Order: sequence, then C-alpha cells, then structure tokens
Amino acid sequence: MWSLSDAESASSASIVFGSEPLSLDMRETNREWVLARRPEGEPEMDSFELRERDVPKPEQGEVLVRVRYLSVDPYMRGRMRDSESYAAPWDVGDPMSGAVVGEVVDSESEAYEAGEFVTGNGTWADYSVLDGDSVTAVDRNVADLPAHLGVLGMPGRTAYFGLLDVGEPTPGDTVAVSGAAGAVGSIVGQIAKLNGCRVVGFAGSDEKVAWLTDDLGFDAAINYEAVDDYGAALDDAAPGGVDVYFDNVGGPITDAVFTRLNLDARVAVCGQIAHYNDESVPTGPRKLPQLIATRANVEGLLVGDFAPRFAQATEQLAAWVASGDIAHRESVVEGLEHAPDAFLGLFAGDNIGKQVVRVSE
Amino acid sequence: MWSLSDAESASSASIVFGSEPLSLDMRETNREWVLARRPEGEPEMDSFELRERDVPKPEQGEVLVRVRYLSVDPYMRGRMRDSESYAAPWDVGDPMSGAVVGEVVDSESEAYEAGEFVTGNGTWADYSVLDGDSVTAVDRNVADLPAHLGVLGMPGRTAYFGLLDVGEPTPGDTVAVSGAAGAVGSIVGQIAKLNGCRVVGFAGSDEKVAWLTDDLGFDAAINYEAVDDYGAALDDAAPGGVDVYFDNVGGPITDAVFTRLNLDARVAVCGQIAHYNDESVPTGPRKLPQLIATRANVEGLLVGDFAPRFAQATEQLAAWVASGDIAHRESVVEGLEHAPDAFLGLFAGDNIGKQVVRVSE
Repeated sequence: MWSLSDAESASSASIVFGSEPLSLDMRETNREWVLARRPEGEPEMDSFELRERDVPKPEQGEVLVRVRYLSVDPYMRGRMRDSESYAAPWDVGDPMSGAVVGEVVDSESEAYEAGEFVTGNGTWADYSVLDGDSVTAVDRNVADLPAHLGVLGMPGRTAYFGLLDVGEPTPGDTVAVSGAAGAVGSIVGQIAKLNGCRVVGFAGSDEKVAWLTDDLGFDAAINYEAVDDYGAALDDAAPGGVDVYFDNVGGPITDAVFTRLNLDARVAVCGQIAHYNDESVPTGPRKLPQLIATRANVEGLLVGDFAPRFAQATEQLAAWVASGDIAHRESVVEGLEHAPDAFLGLFAGDNIGKQVVRVSE
Repeated sequence: MWSLSDAESASSASIVFGSEPLSLDMRETNREWVLARRPEGEPEMDSFELRERDVPKPEQGEVLVRVRYLSVDPYMRGRMRDSESYAAPWDVGDPMSGAVVGEVVDSESEAYEAGEFVTGNGTWADYSVLDGDSVTAVDRNVADLPAHLGVLGMPGRTAYFGLLDVGEPTPGDTVAVSGAAGAVGSIVGQIAKLNGCRVVGFAGSDEKVAWLTDDLGFDAAINYEAVDDYGAALDDAAPGGVDVYFDNVGGPITDAVFTRLNLDARVAVCGQIAHYNDESVPTGPRKLPQLIATRANVEGLLVGDFAPRFAQATEQLAAWVASGDIAHRESVVEGLEHAPDAFLGLFAGDNIGKQVVRVSE
C-alpha cells in the first residue's frame, strides 16, 4: 500500500506480488489508483491511494490492456460522492476508472488479439482488464493515441452531439462556449465554425485565448480571469446576443450569458465544473424568469444518450481531423503516479485541450 | 381625474365630458384606468388612476365595444416596468390594457356590426375601441362571457399549447402544476388528465385544493400554505417523481419540483408570479447542475408564438367545455372601479380560476 500523500508509510505497506511470473514484457505487479476517501470540497491528494496488486488476468470475453494513456475528466468528481447521479458513485476502495487507450497484451476475446491498440473503459492503472464488447480498436494512422481520448473519444462525441443535437446551431448564429479551451469546448467551437456560426469562447488565460482565436478560428475569446464584468465583455464580443450557449462551467459566466440570450436561444448544459466541488447546493440568480421573455430552451446533456450514433460521430470527427478542419491538443502529465495531479489540475484550469496521463510509452 | 386611492381629491378633478351626445344607450363619458406611476415592488392603488374621457369613436376598421368583462393577468405586472420584455412596457399615463369581452356598439369594420359580442385586446374601460382585424366573435352558446377570457381565451390557449407542445406529456406521465387553481393551471391539469397523466397541483388554500381534486379530477393537490416542506409533500403526492412540470409560480415550489424531475423531464416555464414584484434579480438554488443528471428540458413559453394555431386550440377547448371534459371557473370582481383590486388580488392568490372584472351587465 502506497500513496503519494502517504509516502512515509510505504515501508509498512502490504505489497502483493504476482504469484506467477508473466511471460509478457510486463511489470510483475500492477499499480492502480483507488478512491481512498471521499473528498469534502476540492479533492486533495489524500482522496487517492496507489495500490499494488497482481496484474489481473482477463476472463472470457475480456482483454488485458497495458495502458498507454488514461483520461481524467471533470465528471469523475461526481463519482467520488456518495450520491446517485448519472454515473454510479465509487465506493471507497474502488479503483478510479475511466477511458484509457493502450495495447492488448492478453486476450480472452475473439475480437482482439495481443498487439492491437484499443480504447475503452478501464482503470487508472498500469494494466487494466477491459470488456471486449465495449472496447473499440484504435487507428493510430488517424491520430496519435492521446487524441483517441479527446477529439476522437468521449469529449469529441460530447461536443458533436451536444452542439448539433442539443444546441441546434444554424448558420449565422452566435454560439458562446464556456470552458472553451477544454477538451469539449475546443471542439464545440470548431464544429460551430464549420456550421457557419460566429463563436465566442470563455477561457481562463491569455494563452488559452490566443489558442482559441489564432489556432482554432474562434471569432472572439474572453479571458475571464482578466475581466471583472463578464457581461460587458460578452457585449463587446457578441453585440448581437447569444443564440446557442454550450455550458461546461456554470457560475457567473453562465449568469452573464443567460442575460444575453436571444429569442428562441438554446442552452446545452454539458458541465458545471464551477460547482462540482460545492458541498451545498449553490445559489445564484434565478434564470427561469428570463426564459419566458426569450423562450429559450435549456437542456441537460449526457453523451451516453447518443450511444447508438457514436460510430457516426467518431467517423465524422476523424474526417475533420484528417482534413485539418478540426485541430486538437492534449495536455500530457507524465506518469501514472501523477494521475491525481492531472485530475486536480482540471479544477485549476491547468489543461489546454484534453488532459491525459501518459502511463507507459 | 379621479382615483380610488385619491377619492378626496375628486372634487377638484378635471373631468372631461363628451362634447357630442351619443345616440346609443351609453354613458356620455368613458372611465378608463391608466398607469399613474410605476410601482416599486408590489403595486398599490396609487399605481393606477381612473380617468374620464369622451367615449372614443372607432376609425376605419375598428369597433367600439361596450366592455362587459375585462381580464386581469399576472403578466401585466411586467408591462408596468420601464424595461423591454415580451410585452412592451406601458408609459405612465397609458391606459391599462388587456383582453376584454363585450358588445359592439359602433362599428367601422365590415366584419362586425352593432349588437355582436366580441373579444379582443382593449382597455380597462367602460368603452374600448378594438381593431376589427384582431377581435374574434364570441359564441355565448358555448359558454358565458367570462369564460371567453379564461378557458376559451388566452389562458386556455396558454394551457393547451404549453402543456401539449412544450410539456409533451405521454400517458402515464406525472404532471406537476404550480398555480394549479389559477386560470392557466386549472386547465393544464385537466388537459393532462385527458392525456392519461397523473396530475399533482400546488395551490394556496384548502378550498382551492378541494376544487382541484374533487371537481377537476387532479390526482393530488398540495396546499403550499399549509405545508413547510414542499419536497416532502411532493414525495407523498408523486412518489415516482415528475415527468412534466408546468410552472406558473417559480420560487421555492419550483425549487422542490426541480429536485424531483425524472429522466428526460420537460419543464414549461409559463409564469413566475412569485418574482414579478421583485425589484432585484431573485436568487435561489442553481438548477443547471440538476439538469445534467436528468437531461431535463426547460423551456420558456409565450402563447403568442402559437398564434397561427389559436383557432384550433379554441375549437378543441370549446368542445371539451361542451362535453364537460373540462370544467372552468371564473372569479368575478364587480365594477370597473375595482379593476386594480382584482389585479392586485392575483398576487395575493385571491382568485380561483380566471379572475375577471364585470364592467357592465
């Protein structure tokens, strides 16, 4: 038993070694992060614990994957709570889990064999057993491995369906995006541009703003850390108001956008990262009175609802990446041992584009 | 110049009498309520002033109507503010206006002649000039005159389109309605019952609750004045949660309903009467985080958007009234001079069903 925050107790750790030597070029033991305790407010390092276990063996239909990159995502904060939501809560002691991409090193699935690269739902670990039915093969020719956790993974699909199916942009619309330099927001803005929209992003640094406007083609971007009055900044950036708002953040940015929604505006509520660490129900300006005047439509968004069309979305996103119509960027934290740092960095806005952790080369 | 709140100054009032005697069986002067000053917070009597003027003459295309009943509606509070919204603000000195029903006494419209009963947008007055193109004939065989301002008027159409087009109920859904004993809510609940839904209403007195459950067929109703915990009351009344919420009220009732929305719930935001007298932006629990888990759809509703289908709705509502499938009730305040009392009573919850003012027999 060993954790980053508890290194001094490592000498007394009960490390379990594999009982059978593995013939593969593998570590003998598997490191895996588990939920050590439920955080109150902002998670800290002692919320996580890195355990060593035997490398697991795949059972019938499963594949064992040597993880190359793992994904950290804001929604995982919800799973650390002891309350039901769209994703089941983790129990204390459960492995931290999420999207991974890696190489099959042992397979009990007829669909995959060792040496293939796949992505699917695994754990924050060196090796992870994945359900063969739920993984998909990764084409490294389309994009490097980390992109399969971003633009070609769940964040890309979230942007695709959230903008097109919930936001329903039409050419000439003004689309506002919060968390615009994040994994989802950066793709949302580019898809909106491809649909003939004017796009305004909110992001938290000058570097992010420059990336959005110079590299991704956003019409305007607002560094919310550098302005006091979000509404005035938005008035400058989008003098005609907002037709579609793709919200990843919530809080005061969202409050400012809501007062600038146009008639029949659509709001896709994808994330509310400003509130994920709140321990009581957050309060703010009531928004329902504003909806009557605008007849705006506000809808929650969860990408899993679009599962039957995932392949279609990924194919389109891959085509846009191949043609250069969509640029993407990943922020990489090196080493499984730093996975919690990468996760906590999401709430500090450390990432530009998709945050991943490189577990192995 | 004379106002209810300023009766002692009546002796010095500058009453203007009609200069030409009218041949009709009419008053020589016309009393008309105007906006005397913009209220701060809850309107009081000094917000209104009853003026006497000449009886107006219809111009080409217009009809002069002797008002029998006038409608007071919560949305009128918004027009008393000096801010743009879905209904243009009144200027100080403008007549109070809204739906009226009455008898044509003089016509410059080819479509109507004296003696016909019509409804349309008029003023709080004894006589009001209406645009002949915008009025509709009233069939007194279908229902008595006041009902044409309620179930067969704008409130009925609001209920019809708001529930069916925005709420999109399906059989078996649980529909919650706030302001359930009001002009709109009472019709919403009955249309929901006709569509095979379970219906729960919030209302503000035992008498209203009894009307909803005993006469209108609501499955349950909650007297919010008699319970402290709206959420617990709703858990009892709707243990399976809420699929459609038709909101006329806002505030804590709405907060309780939002935490009990089911997956893919629909919320039609029709009114927010709890907030119409607020002078600053009201605050409350943020609701967007809840929308992600439920993927609920929240949409503002304004009946005017459905104008091309008004006739269809009124025809259906009239059929339901004729068949007895929909019951309706009007609260009548007697006398034009008490129109402001009737209006203010809306915010105190004085009305059961549609609040109207009887101006003449």
